[in-house]
Amino acid sequence: MLQATETLLRERGLSGAGIQQVVARSRAPIGSVYYFFPKGKTQLVGEALQIHGEKARALLERFLSDKAQSLPDRFRALCRNAAAGFDQAGANKGCAIGSVSLDLDARLDALRTICEDAFDGWIAAIAQELPWPDEAERRSFAEMAVAAIEGAFVLSRARRSGEPFLTVGEWLARALEQATVMGGQHGSASR
Amino acid sequence: MLQATETLLRERGLSGAGIQQVVARSRAPIGSVYYFFPKGKTQLVGEALQIHGEKARALLERFLSDKAQSLPDRFRALCRNAAAGFDQAGANKGCAIGSVSLDLDARLDALRTICEDAFDGWIAAIAQELPWPDEAERRSFAEMAVAAIEGAFVLSRARRSGEPFLTVGEWLARALEQATVMGGQHGSASR
Repeated sequence: MLQATETLLRERGLSGAGIQQVVARSRAPIGSVYYFFPKGKTQLVGEALQIHGEKARALLERFLSDKAQSLPDRFRALCRNAAAGFDQAGANKGCAIGSVSLDLDARLDALRTICEDAFDGWIAAIAQELPWPDEAERRSFAEMAVAAIEGAFVLSRARRSGEPFLTVGEWLARALEQATVMGGQHGSASR
Repeated sequence: MLQATETLLRERGLSGAGIQQVVARSRAPIGSVYYFFPKGKTQLVGEALQIHGEKARALLERFLSDKAQSLPDRFRALCRNAAAGFDQAGANKGCAIGSVSLDLDARLDALRTICEDAFDGWIAAIAQELPWPDEAERRSFAEMAVAAIEGAFVLSRARRSGEPFLTVGEWLARALEQATVMGGQHGSASR
């Protein structure tokens, strides 16, 4: 059921992941939804988002800690993987966290907090791989990278092509290369 | 009614802009919806998205053609304006085009095309202000900029703060500054 919920969130946002749709997609008996998720849709969606957030963080860490490649090339590889994954999954699945973030209203503050925590976790995972001594600078670049990747999902959905991920990966990589060239400014020589 | 539809799309995505909600928000009689929009919700949302796309393009053009500032500073000003606008509007309104893009399903290809065209228009508006002779390079940076700004909406919604726009504006500006420093590579001295 959590898998079906995640897929529905990625395809159609929060409204697409209603209990009826989750039951239809997962073929679970409807009674089991309320047995496992007594608080209903908000609980089901919240748990699916948490799982999605942790999976995405693990993926980020795997790509960005690959010491066999330069740091810019790790960002290129991450985004190439995202582009290929997007196309192979049917070019119709966004990021569940991003999608829910844009559908939130004031009644859903519990889900908003889960989205905020997921983004913060991704920002921390990226920041820890950056070679700059200034923590604010590392977090700033990492926030830009998460925004750019979330935006790539948006553009890719509209275009039905994962190509925007490649564009984003290339510019993130160049920004890192130029920061290294200008080492003194960012202090990137320290690591 | 179009104004109410746009606001609802920005707040809650495609499912938030149902006919019932638009009628309640705009206080228009329900009969008038089908009088002005005989094809119902898809027509109403499509027209609201087109208006939103054109307004956003005009805003981009206004900021990015301001010759009184350097090009990097124009991107900073654009994103500062977006951050302030986001916070002042209640920190709960995304981009209508981005929001609908993440909620699309296969039945909604007419809306998808409107979103794709809006993004293409914004990319063209940004690309035309870039001083590089290579058109593919101009479009690539412009696509990155649109993705980053769309992603800033996503992060800002989750955080209920427009701060991610400032982060994105700063890194876009730096990328342009470094491209100018490395003029030979991008040929930016040509204009």
